[in-house]
Amino acid sequence: MQTLSYLRPVLASRVTSQSLAELEREMLAIVSTGDAFDSLAPCQAVAAASYHLGSGGQRVRARLALHAGSCLSLTAKDAMTLAAACELLHNASLVHDDIHDRDTHRRGQPSVWYKFGDEIAICAGDLMLSASYLCLSQFGRVAKLPELFALMHARVASAVRGQCVDLKRPRRSVLSIDEYKKIAVAKSGALLSLPTELALLAAGHSHALGLARQAAESFAIGYQIYDDLQDVEKDAARNLQKNEKSNSNTSACNIVLILQADSAYSRPRDEAKKIGLQHLLQAASSSTKLPARVGEAIHTMAMALHEKLRIQE
Amino acid sequence: MQTLSYLRPVLASRVTSQSLAELEREMLAIVSTGDAFDSLAPCQAVAAASYHLGSGGQRVRARLALHAGSCLSLTAKDAMTLAAACELLHNASLVHDDIHDRDTHRRGQPSVWYKFGDEIAICAGDLMLSASYLCLSQFGRVAKLPELFALMHARVASAVRGQCVDLKRPRRSVLSIDEYKKIAVAKSGALLSLPTELALLAAGHSHALGLARQAAESFAIGYQIYDDLQDVEKDAARNLQKNEKSNSNTSACNIVLILQADSAYSRPRDEAKKIGLQHLLQAASSSTKLPARVGEAIHTMAMALHEKLRIQE
Repeated sequence: MQTLSYLRPVLASRVTSQSLAELEREMLAIVSTGDAFDSLAPCQAVAAASYHLGSGGQRVRARLALHAGSCLSLTAKDAMTLAAACELLHNASLVHDDIHDRDTHRRGQPSVWYKFGDEIAICAGDLMLSASYLCLSQFGRVAKLPELFALMHARVASAVRGQCVDLKRPRRSVLSIDEYKKIAVAKSGALLSLPTELALLAAGHSHALGLARQAAESFAIGYQIYDDLQDVEKDAARNLQKNEKSNSNTSACNIVLILQADSAYSRPRDEAKKIGLQHLLQAASSSTKLPARVGEAIHTMAMALHEKLRIQE
Repeated sequence: MQTLSYLRPVLASRVTSQSLAELEREMLAIVSTGDAFDSLAPCQAVAAASYHLGSGGQRVRARLALHAGSCLSLTAKDAMTLAAACELLHNASLVHDDIHDRDTHRRGQPSVWYKFGDEIAICAGDLMLSASYLCLSQFGRVAKLPELFALMHARVASAVRGQCVDLKRPRRSVLSIDEYKKIAVAKSGALLSLPTELALLAAGHSHALGLARQAAESFAIGYQIYDDLQDVEKDAARNLQKNEKSNSNTSACNIVLILQADSAYSRPRDEAKKIGLQHLLQAASSSTKLPARVGEAIHTMAMALHEKLRIQE
């Protein structure tokens, strides 16, 4: 999932620029929380994590948490805690994913592994992952902590699983659409639904978690398809290169290429678009059922993306 | 820190084989805690983490937590929670450290990255790191959770810092003995003191954390020196190979080689041994000041190692 830049205005309503600035300070402070006892040189992993956080990003997951926190009357501090925890977790996963994918750039600047080396990138991701749990532990009502932690770990496990399945697909295999969706759901849906789920759980709406997850998962599939439609040529070229190198026949995880490989679909682009639009409508529909207008953010995101996808050539 | 096998009998007194078997089950269960919602293929990261945990290890950190928990009258379940959390954390760090160090074997079998590849090894380490926090969140008295989490993250940050300093030393530099000790303390001392510190904190003895840390840090330095004395030839050869390759002049982080590089020391092996023996006596001395005989385990470990180091050729 590359950039959700079009969402910035969409999510602006309940999230002030002041609280976003506070979020940045909060995240930087928490990754720098070291033990001051020793006087070793400045930690390269802290420098790398700070560099990565300083590269921007839309903070969509933080915005979703802040929005949901506001709807559900969490204190501003608690909403910020959930927001920073989710955003740190997401960014930890980006730093480690970029190592796997050998992506040299992220948000227009050299990726962490490319700038600092694989080893420091592994350490920086570990530090941010650990910091996200530290952050969550600062949630105000301690009685809620065990549930919140269990939820967060479950979503981490799901994201790890998605990443592994994507990495280790059998070489010969062409993905089915069903497998494609499951990978998108595990890789992106898990960490995208977490902010809303944590806020709902914190506010005592555990019955609504399934709906929040459905909405985020459908959105994640729709977004992945939108992204794939933009990257068809790039992915096809990368595929070719990979297959020449390894003498294998792997299809990239791009829905258009998957549909192309299946003779049943004569117009793979149109078919992909249709599936994407369906899922975005499903996301919008699920989100309206969430309590306290929590789903408004996802609904607006889904409908804005639906429009972008609809008019996409 | 390679193996602490001589400690098995030392730590047997308060830790039954039954509770160690339970520890193994507990750890395997917690890394397998996924979200069962999807029917993707079995997760390779879970398989890799289970493989790594199945390779054995002395479980020294778990034993220290179980011992301290028993001395401090924590419930058996709470002591087990702390033990499993520390051990999962330590093993997560081993899996990621082996990637950095390109160590192909661990505990007599192929290391995780060597068997499963770097990518799955990164995922497996992430999963175990996250699982260690999940595990800690199951501690019975929720009011203690924020403190316990803060402590755990501080020790993770310290271990990450030690790893980074070791990785990124300036090429030209010869370490000073002081820097050498700080690296040993950060890399090994942090996760070695954590089990005792968590138990003390959980039982309301926060005033004793500094002592527990001193004891573990002195032990870590003594152990590192013991280890270095066994590895002098290997490290010297590795150094040579590295320096030829990179045309640099880095001293390995081996105390004997560091002392050799300094003309002030005519008998570096003896000097190293002397420093090691001093630190082990310091560890033993600090440990006796810990409340409720908590320090007995570290004391016995330190004195047993003192004897081994003393008679070492």
